[in-house]
Amino acid sequence: MKQKNGMPLAQAAAEDIIEMIRTNHMKPGDRLENEYELAKKLNVGRSTVREAVKSLETRNILTIKRGAGTFISQNEGVAVDPLGISLMGKDEGIALELLDVRMILEPESAALAAIHADKNEIAEISRQNRKVIGMIRQGLDHHEEDARFHQLIAEATKNRIIAKLVPIIQQSVGLTAEMTSKRLTETTVSFHEQIVEAITRGDANGARSAMIAHISENRIYIIKEIERKRRFE
Amino acid sequence: MKQKNGMPLAQAAAEDIIEMIRTNHMKPGDRLENEYELAKKLNVGRSTVREAVKSLETRNILTIKRGAGTFISQNEGVAVDPLGISLMGKDEGIALELLDVRMILEPESAALAAIHADKNEIAEISRQNRKVIGMIRQGLDHHEEDARFHQLIAEATKNRIIAKLVPIIQQSVGLTAEMTSKRLTETTVSFHEQIVEAITRGDANGARSAMIAHISENRIYIIKEIERKRRFE
Repeated sequence: MKQKNGMPLAQAAAEDIIEMIRTNHMKPGDRLENEYELAKKLNVGRSTVREAVKSLETRNILTIKRGAGTFISQNEGVAVDPLGISLMGKDEGIALELLDVRMILEPESAALAAIHADKNEIAEISRQNRKVIGMIRQGLDHHEEDARFHQLIAEATKNRIIAKLVPIIQQSVGLTAEMTSKRLTETTVSFHEQIVEAITRGDANGARSAMIAHISENRIYIIKEIERKRRFE
Repeated sequence: MKQKNGMPLAQAAAEDIIEMIRTNHMKPGDRLENEYELAKKLNVGRSTVREAVKSLETRNILTIKRGAGTFISQNEGVAVDPLGISLMGKDEGIALELLDVRMILEPESAALAAIHADKNEIAEISRQNRKVIGMIRQGLDHHEEDARFHQLIAEATKNRIIAKLVPIIQQSVGLTAEMTSKRLTETTVSFHEQIVEAITRGDANGARSAMIAHISENRIYIIKEIERKRRFE
């Protein structure tokens, strides 16, 4: 295989395309130049461009629409089920392991949000929380809106890695969700409100504590569910 | 678009293929049945199978090799750069944000490893550590072997999500690594040894503390590097 700086040519072309996307500040939905123009610009053959574009499609950075062209993906490079959790199964173990990871990540996420959230972010978190609480009280499936609440907190941390990780974990919770989707209690509402209040007053320790309590509640609920299922087996 | 249980047909077919991979305990490198057989088995058209297989290739679950067939991917569903960090840039900010995430994840990972690692895992972690230390002392680029050391600790937690997450973060460190790859000091060696010793004696708090010290050292190093660069700008 032909190489450039010890890197396969198509991989080097893919890196060049990423660099191009970044320096031109291209946004999801923007259209990439065609194969011919790219080949000229990157100084490689069209088959190399094709291979590079395909690898970037695999990485959810580009989306190829037959007949329409190649576009910047809406996913911003984040894969669907990036941890491959759908391959692991949907057992109870996974649900608990996910909660253990949430317990590691999200209290710190809440604490950082309390430190870094600006007024607009606080308003949006608060609005989203009212939406979730409304759905809980109406007995609706609030899983997606709840995930969005946790995502907004992660984004307010201003740590771009946490902002990507928390939604991935939340999305994975969705993959294993049957057992977690119906814990619709007044204590959930109360912990959510405590989280929002602590973030609003810039209270990092308060936000961390309330998030720990919230996730602990989920954990206890799931363990009870597992025990209940076992009794009926 | 045709649907099944409210899900696009190709997506439902993709889910069926995942289910098939799981129930047949298929391993990376195993070959999938051909399009014709899959279509018959899943009771859908060949174009639906083609679309489903392509979507699973995008998710790094399958690998299509032209002329040879379709195989279970070596990546086990984990994407290359699954967080899309290559799109974010390689600035100093990202390097620090990654370290902040490591500081959240890895001390707990070390503590859980101290609790759950079995004899074989302890031996492997210890062997890998000697390899890394050897490379540090010879002044070699030890980034990949160091990432493997941290990955083995993550796997020993027995939490399958942590086992996936830590390598993703380590891989992302690689994407931004220029500034982090050459901190080759005797204190690094000492902290690594403290981590291994604590895991070996099942000392969760010791493993957590040593990991905090290790990552802190990296953080201080990077902040000094950033300041040094700024002075020369």
